[in-house]
Amino acid sequence: MLGLMQDRPLLISQIIDYAAEFHPDVEVVSRSVEGPIHRYTYRQAQLRAKQLAEALADLGIRQGDRIATIAWNGYRHFELYFAVSGMGAVLHTLNPRLAPDHIVFIAEHAEDQVLFVDLNLLPIVEAVRPHLKTVRHVVVMTDRAHMPAASKIEGLLCYEELLAGQPGTFVWPEVDERSAASLCYTSGTTGNPKGVLYSHRSTLLHTLMMISGPVLGLTPDNTILPVVPMFHANAWGIIYASAMSGTKLVLPGPKLDGQSLYELMDAEAVDLSAGVPTVWLELLRYCDTAGKTLGKMKRTLIGGSAVPRAMIERFWHEHQVEVVHGWGMTELSPVGSLTWFRRGERDLPEEKRFDLTAWQGRPVFGVEMKIVDDAGRDLPKDGSVAGNLLVRGPWVAGGYMKGEGQSSFTAGGWFHTGDVAKLESDGSLVITDRSKDVIKSGGEWISSIDLENAAMGCPGVAEAAVIGLPHPKWDERPLLIVMRKPGAEVTPAQILEHLQDKVAKWWLPDEIAFVDAIPHGATGKILKTKLREQFHDHKLPGT
Amino acid sequence: MLGLMQDRPLLISQIIDYAAEFHPDVEVVSRSVEGPIHRYTYRQAQLRAKQLAEALADLGIRQGDRIATIAWNGYRHFELYFAVSGMGAVLHTLNPRLAPDHIVFIAEHAEDQVLFVDLNLLPIVEAVRPHLKTVRHVVVMTDRAHMPAASKIEGLLCYEELLAGQPGTFVWPEVDERSAASLCYTSGTTGNPKGVLYSHRSTLLHTLMMISGPVLGLTPDNTILPVVPMFHANAWGIIYASAMSGTKLVLPGPKLDGQSLYELMDAEAVDLSAGVPTVWLELLRYCDTAGKTLGKMKRTLIGGSAVPRAMIERFWHEHQVEVVHGWGMTELSPVGSLTWFRRGERDLPEEKRFDLTAWQGRPVFGVEMKIVDDAGRDLPKDGSVAGNLLVRGPWVAGGYMKGEGQSSFTAGGWFHTGDVAKLESDGSLVITDRSKDVIKSGGEWISSIDLENAAMGCPGVAEAAVIGLPHPKWDERPLLIVMRKPGAEVTPAQILEHLQDKVAKWWLPDEIAFVDAIPHGATGKILKTKLREQFHDHKLPGT
Repeated sequence: MLGLMQDRPLLISQIIDYAAEFHPDVEVVSRSVEGPIHRYTYRQAQLRAKQLAEALADLGIRQGDRIATIAWNGYRHFELYFAVSGMGAVLHTLNPRLAPDHIVFIAEHAEDQVLFVDLNLLPIVEAVRPHLKTVRHVVVMTDRAHMPAASKIEGLLCYEELLAGQPGTFVWPEVDERSAASLCYTSGTTGNPKGVLYSHRSTLLHTLMMISGPVLGLTPDNTILPVVPMFHANAWGIIYASAMSGTKLVLPGPKLDGQSLYELMDAEAVDLSAGVPTVWLELLRYCDTAGKTLGKMKRTLIGGSAVPRAMIERFWHEHQVEVVHGWGMTELSPVGSLTWFRRGERDLPEEKRFDLTAWQGRPVFGVEMKIVDDAGRDLPKDGSVAGNLLVRGPWVAGGYMKGEGQSSFTAGGWFHTGDVAKLESDGSLVITDRSKDVIKSGGEWISSIDLENAAMGCPGVAEAAVIGLPHPKWDERPLLIVMRKPGAEVTPAQILEHLQDKVAKWWLPDEIAFVDAIPHGATGKILKTKLREQFHDHKLPGT
Repeated sequence: MLGLMQDRPLLISQIIDYAAEFHPDVEVVSRSVEGPIHRYTYRQAQLRAKQLAEALADLGIRQGDRIATIAWNGYRHFELYFAVSGMGAVLHTLNPRLAPDHIVFIAEHAEDQVLFVDLNLLPIVEAVRPHLKTVRHVVVMTDRAHMPAASKIEGLLCYEELLAGQPGTFVWPEVDERSAASLCYTSGTTGNPKGVLYSHRSTLLHTLMMISGPVLGLTPDNTILPVVPMFHANAWGIIYASAMSGTKLVLPGPKLDGQSLYELMDAEAVDLSAGVPTVWLELLRYCDTAGKTLGKMKRTLIGGSAVPRAMIERFWHEHQVEVVHGWGMTELSPVGSLTWFRRGERDLPEEKRFDLTAWQGRPVFGVEMKIVDDAGRDLPKDGSVAGNLLVRGPWVAGGYMKGEGQSSFTAGGWFHTGDVAKLESDGSLVITDRSKDVIKSGGEWISSIDLENAAMGCPGVAEAAVIGLPHPKWDERPLLIVMRKPGAEVTPAQILEHLQDKVAKWWLPDEIAFVDAIPHGATGKILKTKLREQFHDHKLPGT
C-alpha cells in the first residue's frame, strides 16, 4: 500500500530558488582571483546562475552533459554549482593540484564538454588542452578586462561575456531526483582515480543532514567560510548547506595562507569554518606569530585526515574555538560522522571533551556503519577490536563511474571504505588506519595514525608519518618519519620517551628518520606511497 | 543520466534504531493514564516497539494493514508509532474527541484491523464496538492489574500481556519508502472526514526539515513537550523529530490543564513545547493566578489556529518565552511555515519581532506556496492582495484516501489549502481566513481572522469569533461574537472604539453579540458552523 503524498522530486535548483526568495539579501562574499573582495546576495547569485544556464544552453549543453571546473572557492564557482546541476547537466569539479596527466585522464574519462577555469589556473589548462578531446569550449572565469591578451588555446571564452545579455529567466527543469548532479573523482592514491556521481537526491539529503540541529545546526545568523575547496567533495556540502539555511557564505579564493584567511575571517565576522588540518596548522601558526586570536569564530569543522589532539586543545585554549572533527570520503558526499555531544556531554570536563573530539565523531543520521574482519564477518561495536569499515546510506556511493572498482561494493549494499576502524560502545568512530597503511606486525595490527598522532604531540615535531618496513621476524615493523619544527633539535630518544606511555610497547617504532619535508597529495593528505618509494631500500636496525 | 548513489529507502524504523544506538540513555518521560510518571530510554522504547511488532505479527497483521489508536500522548503510543510503521503496517491515529458516529465512519473507512485504546478512553470504544466491522481486536494500553474487571467488549486484549515474552529481536522490513506509514483524517468541518495517508518518505523528509537549524534546530540537549496530541497530525511530527535528534521527550498524557502542564514542564526542565492557542491560554492563566513563571522554557511552537498578538507579548514579557508561530494542515504533515527570523531580524526592536511573529511565519525549505484568484490565476507575492493559498512539496498530500476530495488537487500538482492568505514581500505568510469563513462585502473580502485578532486585544474580551450574515445591500456583513473575561463589563461601544484604528472602517462589525461560550471542535478550532447555526435567524441592525 503506497502513501498518497505528492511525488515531488528533491532538486538542487530548489536550494538556490529558496535562498533567492527567502534569504534574498544574505551575502556571498568572495576574495576574487583578480584581487578585490566581491560581494553580492543570494538573489543576485540566482539571477546569474540562471543567466549561466542560458549561456550553457546556447552552447548546446543538454541534460546529463558533464561541465568541468578548475577553480577556487569563489562566486562564479558558486554560480556554476547551481546553474549546471540546476539545468540537469553534471558539474565535474577538477582538482587543480593534480598532475597534468591525471587531469587529462579524468577529463577524458568524464567526457567533459566545457571546461571553466579560474584566471590564475589557466596555465594548467593551456598545458593539457591538446589532450582534452571531448572538451569543446574553455571558459575563463573572469571579465573581458582581465582576459589574457594571448593564449595557446584557440577560441577561449570569457565568463562575463557569456552571461552578458542573457535574460536570467531560465526555468529549471524538473528532472528525476536520482539524476546525476555532480561528479568528483577520488584522489586515486592507488590505481586510477574513480568517479563518484552524486544525484540530486543524495545531495539534498546530505544537505538536510548538514543543517540539522545535531550536526551544524546552520541558521541565517551564522557566517561560514569553507576553506575546504569546492573541488574537494563539493566543499563538504557547505555550498548547498549555506544556501538552504540562508547562512552568509565567505569564499576565500586562492589565498589560503594563514594571514589571508585570518584577515578575511576577521573582516567578515566568520563564526564557523571548515578545512583540513594542514590549513589550520598554518592559521594557528600565523595567529601565534602575529599575536592574534580568532575572536568571532566559535566552531571549526576539521576533516580530510585525523585531527591531532594538540590542535583541538590549541583551538580551545588559545582561541575559544570548538573543533568539530569530521570523518568522510568523496564516496560519502562526504560526511559520515562528526563530533556531536550526547545529552549532558557538554558538561564534561574539557579533557573528556577533547578525548571525544580526538575521535572521528559519531555517525550522522542516515549513515550506517559496521566493521568486519578480512573474511567479511561482523565484528563487535564495543571498541575491543578494529576491523574493515563498511558504510551505507542514501548519500553513499553505490558504484563508480563506468562500473569501475566493483570490489568496493558488497552484495549486501555496503561500501568498503578502505579504512580500518573501531566502533566504540559510546557510538564513536575511531579510524585507526587506511587498510593499506596498517602495519601488520606478528599477526597484530599497528595503527600508523595512532602512532603519528602520538608523535605529533611531542615538542619539536612539526609533522610525523609512519610506514611499515619489512622485518624477517615480525613481517613488518614501523618506521617513524619526522619533520622537525624550524630550529627544533628534538632527538629520537626524546621522541621515544614521549611515546612511551602513549602507545603499546610493541608499537614503538624500530627507527626514527628525520626529513626536511613530508610529501602531501592534491587534497592535503600525506602521500605514503611517496614515502614508501623514498624508503624502499631502507633497512630497519637489526634487519 | 542517473547518479550512482546507493538506493537506500528513507524509513521510519531508521529513526528509532538511530535513537536506540546513538542516544540510548535519553529519556522519554510520560504522565501515564494510570497516574504515575513513567520514564524510560530510547533504547528501552526500541526494544518494546520490536516486541509490539512481534505481537502484531502474531495477531496476523501484515504490511499495509491499518492499526488504529485512540490514545493520549504517552510512551505506549510512542511505541505504536514505531512498531506499526516500522513493520510496514499503517498507524491510524483517531481523535477521541470526535463524535461516536465520526469515529465509526473513520474506522470503517480506514478498514482498521486492530484498535489500541488508552484505559480512560475505553468507554468511547465500548459505545461503538458493535459498529466497527473490520476491527478484529481491541487492545487496552495498560497492564493486567489495571485492566477493567468487566467490559462490554468481548476478548479485550491487554497491551502488556501482548508484549510479555516477546523476544524483541524483530527485524524491520525494508519497504519502499513511498509505502504508507500513517494515516490521519482531517477534522472534516465540512463534509465527511478525509484520510491523509503519509508515506515513510514524506515523514522522514518532514522530520529532517523540523530538526534543521532554521526550523527547530533540535539537539540532544533540548527537552521538548508536545501538548499537541499524537492523534493530531502526528503531534506535528515532534515524536519523530525528538527521536531523530536525541531530544528528551516529555509526554503529558491526559492531563492538559494549566497546573498539570506547568508542573510537568517545571519538573522535567522542558525548554520547548508545542500546542494550540487554547492550551496556552489555560497555562498562562494558571501561571498568572499561581504567580509562577515558565523559568526553563525558551520557546513554544503554537499553531492549529492563529496566535493572538497579545499572547505573543505575554509569553515574552511575563515568561521570556519566544513564540514560534506555525501554520500547517493535516495535509502538510503538518508544517508548512513557521516563524523564523531572517539574518539580522533578531536584533529588531521587540515590537517588530512581535509583528513578524503574529504572522504565520515563512515557508520552510521544501514547501512551495502561491496564491491564486478564484479563476486560478497567480496573484502577486507582495502583500497587496489576498488569494486562495496553494501549496506543494514532498510532504504535502497528493490525494485523499480512496480517491476522495479530488477537487482539492490541481492538475499542476498543487494542493488547495482552503485558506485565504497574503504572501508578503518579505516572504511571510499571512492567513487572512478560511475561504469558507471569509466575509464577502460589496465585492471585497473581509478577513474574519483579522477582525477576531483585533477584538481579542481589547481588554475584557476573552475570545472572539466573526461570521458573515446576509445583508441586502452588501451581500454579507460581519457579526462579531464575543465571550467576555470573567467579571468583565466591556461594552460594544468600547470594543468598536478599540477596533477603530486597527481595521479598515468598512470592516467594523455591524453588530456585536455577547455569548457565554464559543464552541470548539475536536482539534481546538472555533466551530463556525455551530455559530452559523446558532445565529442562523439573527438579523443584523437595519436588515
